[in-house]
Amino acid sequence: MESLDKLWQLAAIAVSFLAFAMAVWLYVWVKAQPSSNVKIAEVGKLIQQGANTFLKREYIVLAKFAGVVAILILVFLPSPIWAGGITKNIAMALSYVFGTVLSAIAGKIGITVATIANVKSVEAAQKGIKPAFLAGFRGGAVMGMAVVGTSLMGVALVLMITGNATAVLGFSFGASSLALFAKAGGGIFTKTADISADLVGKVELGIPEDDPRNPAVIADNVGDNVGDVAGMGADLFDSNVAAMAAAIVMAMAIDKNLANSINTAMVFCYAAIGLLSSIIGVFSARMGKKGGPTKALNRSTYVTTAIFAILTAAATYFFNFEWRIWGATAIGLAVGVIIGITSDYFTNDNKKPVRYVANASKSGPAFTILSGISYGFLSALPALIGIGISALVAYRICEPIGPGYAMFGIAMSAMGMLSIVGMIISNDAYGPIVDNARGLAEMGNLGDKVLEITDELDSAGNTVKAVTKGFAIGAAGLTIIALLGAFMSEVNSAAAEMGKELITGFDILNPTVFFGLLVGVAIPAVFSAMLIMGVDRNAQRMVKEIHRQFKEIIGLKEGKEGVKPEYDKCIDIATVGAIKELIPAGLMAIVATLAVGFIGGVQAIGGFLTGNILSGLLLALFMSNAGGLWDNAKKYIEAGNLGGKGSDAHKAAVVGDTVGDPFKDTAGPSINTQVTVVSLVSSLMASSFLAYSLFK
Amino acid sequence: MESLDKLWQLAAIAVSFLAFAMAVWLYVWVKAQPSSNVKIAEVGKLIQQGANTFLKREYIVLAKFAGVVAILILVFLPSPIWAGGITKNIAMALSYVFGTVLSAIAGKIGITVATIANVKSVEAAQKGIKPAFLAGFRGGAVMGMAVVGTSLMGVALVLMITGNATAVLGFSFGASSLALFAKAGGGIFTKTADISADLVGKVELGIPEDDPRNPAVIADNVGDNVGDVAGMGADLFDSNVAAMAAAIVMAMAIDKNLANSINTAMVFCYAAIGLLSSIIGVFSARMGKKGGPTKALNRSTYVTTAIFAILTAAATYFFNFEWRIWGATAIGLAVGVIIGITSDYFTNDNKKPVRYVANASKSGPAFTILSGISYGFLSALPALIGIGISALVAYRICEPIGPGYAMFGIAMSAMGMLSIVGMIISNDAYGPIVDNARGLAEMGNLGDKVLEITDELDSAGNTVKAVTKGFAIGAAGLTIIALLGAFMSEVNSAAAEMGKELITGFDILNPTVFFGLLVGVAIPAVFSAMLIMGVDRNAQRMVKEIHRQFKEIIGLKEGKEGVKPEYDKCIDIATVGAIKELIPAGLMAIVATLAVGFIGGVQAIGGFLTGNILSGLLLALFMSNAGGLWDNAKKYIEAGNLGGKGSDAHKAAVVGDTVGDPFKDTAGPSINTQVTVVSLVSSLMASSFLAYSLFK
Repeated sequence: MESLDKLWQLAAIAVSFLAFAMAVWLYVWVKAQPSSNVKIAEVGKLIQQGANTFLKREYIVLAKFAGVVAILILVFLPSPIWAGGITKNIAMALSYVFGTVLSAIAGKIGITVATIANVKSVEAAQKGIKPAFLAGFRGGAVMGMAVVGTSLMGVALVLMITGNATAVLGFSFGASSLALFAKAGGGIFTKTADISADLVGKVELGIPEDDPRNPAVIADNVGDNVGDVAGMGADLFDSNVAAMAAAIVMAMAIDKNLANSINTAMVFCYAAIGLLSSIIGVFSARMGKKGGPTKALNRSTYVTTAIFAILTAAATYFFNFEWRIWGATAIGLAVGVIIGITSDYFTNDNKKPVRYVANASKSGPAFTILSGISYGFLSALPALIGIGISALVAYRICEPIGPGYAMFGIAMSAMGMLSIVGMIISNDAYGPIVDNARGLAEMGNLGDKVLEITDELDSAGNTVKAVTKGFAIGAAGLTIIALLGAFMSEVNSAAAEMGKELITGFDILNPTVFFGLLVGVAIPAVFSAMLIMGVDRNAQRMVKEIHRQFKEIIGLKEGKEGVKPEYDKCIDIATVGAIKELIPAGLMAIVATLAVGFIGGVQAIGGFLTGNILSGLLLALFMSNAGGLWDNAKKYIEAGNLGGKGSDAHKAAVVGDTVGDPFKDTAGPSINTQVTVVSLVSSLMASSFLAYSLFK
Repeated sequence: MESLDKLWQLAAIAVSFLAFAMAVWLYVWVKAQPSSNVKIAEVGKLIQQGANTFLKREYIVLAKFAGVVAILILVFLPSPIWAGGITKNIAMALSYVFGTVLSAIAGKIGITVATIANVKSVEAAQKGIKPAFLAGFRGGAVMGMAVVGTSLMGVALVLMITGNATAVLGFSFGASSLALFAKAGGGIFTKTADISADLVGKVELGIPEDDPRNPAVIADNVGDNVGDVAGMGADLFDSNVAAMAAAIVMAMAIDKNLANSINTAMVFCYAAIGLLSSIIGVFSARMGKKGGPTKALNRSTYVTTAIFAILTAAATYFFNFEWRIWGATAIGLAVGVIIGITSDYFTNDNKKPVRYVANASKSGPAFTILSGISYGFLSALPALIGIGISALVAYRICEPIGPGYAMFGIAMSAMGMLSIVGMIISNDAYGPIVDNARGLAEMGNLGDKVLEITDELDSAGNTVKAVTKGFAIGAAGLTIIALLGAFMSEVNSAAAEMGKELITGFDILNPTVFFGLLVGVAIPAVFSAMLIMGVDRNAQRMVKEIHRQFKEIIGLKEGKEGVKPEYDKCIDIATVGAIKELIPAGLMAIVATLAVGFIGGVQAIGGFLTGNILSGLLLALFMSNAGGLWDNAKKYIEAGNLGGKGSDAHKAAVVGDTVGDPFKDTAGPSINTQVTVVSLVSSLMASSFLAYSLFK
């Protein structure tokens, strides 16, 4: 049984290749769809170029950042080269770089396909909604398959080659570094463009969304791709890898004391089954005779969930895994679904919250904001209870198996939630593709019928997004709790080496822990504030540029034939500004971790991480749900309710939507990544904090 | 030395009477100031009647609530009568009722004086700013003296009579119950009126603030009194009592093992000195030849601080108290001042944040909101670090003295922060008095010169308020940390009685604790949301009523001679609505505590309280500072900057201010109270949770 884990690592790699094959097949399928409209192709090209420009710039900055971090790792981690030799450090540095590179490649693939699929989808929309849906969804699924394939393969390879769980943490840290850039940077980019385009276009000039005269319109469409496709992909790549890394660290710690490596094997087995289930789910997704695109997306998600539950049960039976751990995984999966459903309640325009906020907008924007913030706060409660219950139940179920299993149970519960991540990403990347398709239909003047179809597809994307976002936050929450366990595991293996006393926990009444808690709670708030202000500043720059173009380019405002705005200038501003604004925020989180760690030591870090997790979850849920709610309240009014477009309620709802934009697409979803980065830095620095902190 | 504590309790009571004497003197002084203007007297009367109506209604509901709670206490606390006899339970129930009654009396006194002082202040303003300032400040100081006198006397009496620290917790719970009604209820009242008056008056009809035609104008002025005078007074009464209660619980636990009661004595000695310092500070407050009212208020605060530090040092020297504990107290005091200064930075219109938000308003309300929220989040960091440092340092300083002293140090640090509470309340109650004076000047048509003076007084009130609010939140933060220690102390004395294992702490990695943390973090957010939505709903009701009056009362809009709005209808709506909206929010917090306690037991409660403290502090700081910032950004624009009144920037800033109103005056300052209530319920229920929880 000893090489059971190796066997499953190979199996995981094999399934990864199946995912790649699936991705290639989907890519070829998408590419083979017809596209004949020259004007649309031209605009599609512009979007593609813009997205590539952003990615290129981002990756150059990232390469520098990663280079510096890799050198630091090489010198200091897992232990300084003068203390522990260089072999492990090289492995760690390479794993880190590998993590950034794999995630970057997945992002690049996703963007490439998404910027083809948008053109194909709008082309197909001229024939009907079903083929348009399929083009959009399959385009998104390429990203889904690429992300889960590369993440699983990467983790398996790193572990096979190094045989070292800490190296997997290094790989995970690489993925987090990239996610920080991709999600926060992409988030700033997309909202800069979105807000500026709306502010000048819709509000000041009263021209429609996606009007080609608007200099920011291409940047806006590029933003959908870099923020939602590449950003969300990197975010979930990161969560997925972090969940596996945490599970592996704990599984290997347990397996060290066993004669075999059954728990490590189990991690890879379940991960492989998760990927397999997602492949089947993606394959099964299509619109039936009845029911719209929302139903199709949701149905395939549930199919994936069911397949995962059944196949893991079968595997547990055949390979004699612990049934209790299967239980923990199933709990995670179930709670994930519940969190998704509550997110949906708070952001669906058929439910009370959206209706209430839309109604409140009749009294003016202040009431839109106040009621939206209130519902955002309320929405955090069920998800937090859900995460708490799944952590508690997973722990209690697995505790009786033996020492170390309790925290391992939580990690596996997170993996359960993330098992269907391939499906989640596919659904999520579908959103910006059909959003783009809608833009292309508008810019290509394809007429009302096509616009109607793309609107329906877009609206399904928005609805499903709320569910997937709730899911992603829930999974990240459990993952970070598991990372807290991984941190303690790392601290104790370092303590054992140094001959220091082992840590048994983090006592809240220890003032060092409490100090860490208080500081930790502030970090996600400060991080969010920095990102939001980044969007704000960057949007101001872009608004200035749009004003300049409308003033200086003669005939632009009037839509004179042949007069085009300078789209690239706006893309440039969004790109440069996004990178400039994101770096201080990321550094702040890392520097705060190092400061707390070197001042207060591992106890302070225990509190600090917990504080980060707690306020991180609260704020991420609040911002994502409030943002989604405002977006849909606006759409609800635009659909002709409460006076419809142009009414006072609509104006107020637009203010809410603008506030919600950086909430839901910049700060909210970046908080996960920030907390993951902080957790991984802590785990990697565990032995240094233990050895060198100012206070014990 | 054994009766040293009794001696100091008597001394504390003596100093309390000094405070009462001071209050009477101030009252007589204020009352003796001239008031001749009939029109103003008439309006002043209306405000007074409105405030009394609200108080009466509130106290009736409160009496019912307190009656039910008192009966529950009688039956169940500190232990069920069938288990532990009735004597202790009667003492506890009476202490509880005593706490509500004393705080209610202090509130009633404060309101009575405040609604006289406003008339006196505006009358004095006709002679100049100095006498107007003095009338306003001394009116506020009556409240300050009444609150600190009654709270100190109450605590001392309860302890002298019962000899039982748990009874002091009961007294504190009584104070908290009242604070919940007064602060949250008053907060809903005041913002309902303020928002509705502005919405219809300023925004829809374009009539000035405080215009007597506006049916909500009296309710608005009543709101200042019930929200800021009675509410803030009850809040600080509550914090002050809770800090003393926590310190006494821990001091007595230590003293039990000593031959004397020196630590308990020390608590009362320091509390008495704090009160004495505040009396001197209040006496010294007047406007000098140079410098405006802000300087006068701040100077007397610093005078109080210095006197307290010196006198406590002298007492420590003479009575052989522990210098380390003095150090902890001094740290608390110093950090309190620092928190006040950072609050000032974020809300002062001479500093960057307010200027930035005012500037952002030029791009529309969404940017006012986004930048304000961002600065609000940022503002939490320094205060949280400050609270963390003072807790950490106080703990570490006092730890070497012996077992139990570490947490006692934190409690004394909170007492240090709260030592100058008499001064703080005086400053705080000054605000609504001069705000009212401004309203009276407008309604009485006293001309621009008087308006200018009252404006300056009002603006000083707003500036100082930010400092005092920061102070109040910081002190509450430390107090609640101390209450966490008191909770453990209560749990362990119950555990010792039951022969159960003692608790040594709350380990974050215990999933029951973590579950408590996750749920606890959500509670202040949900509580805030319920209050904000309460304001929202209530304001909608009042706006409807104002519209009705303008429509049905002929000649009102045109200001026809002799036509008056039905002010009392608006007061009625605010009153009924406030009570109706606050009860579910308060019950939610209490029910959540009971649910978590009876499900997860004391470990879950340990996490739950910590979660409440963490997100409570984060949200309270965020909301108070963001609200203050928006208020001042609006005022900055109204002072003629960035286009001044009526500009687009001004309109956007008004939206920010409206959002900020319930943030800073309803939800933000009520969170403290909610967390204190939750902490006290936990401490009181400690033995029940230990005995009857579902999980261990």
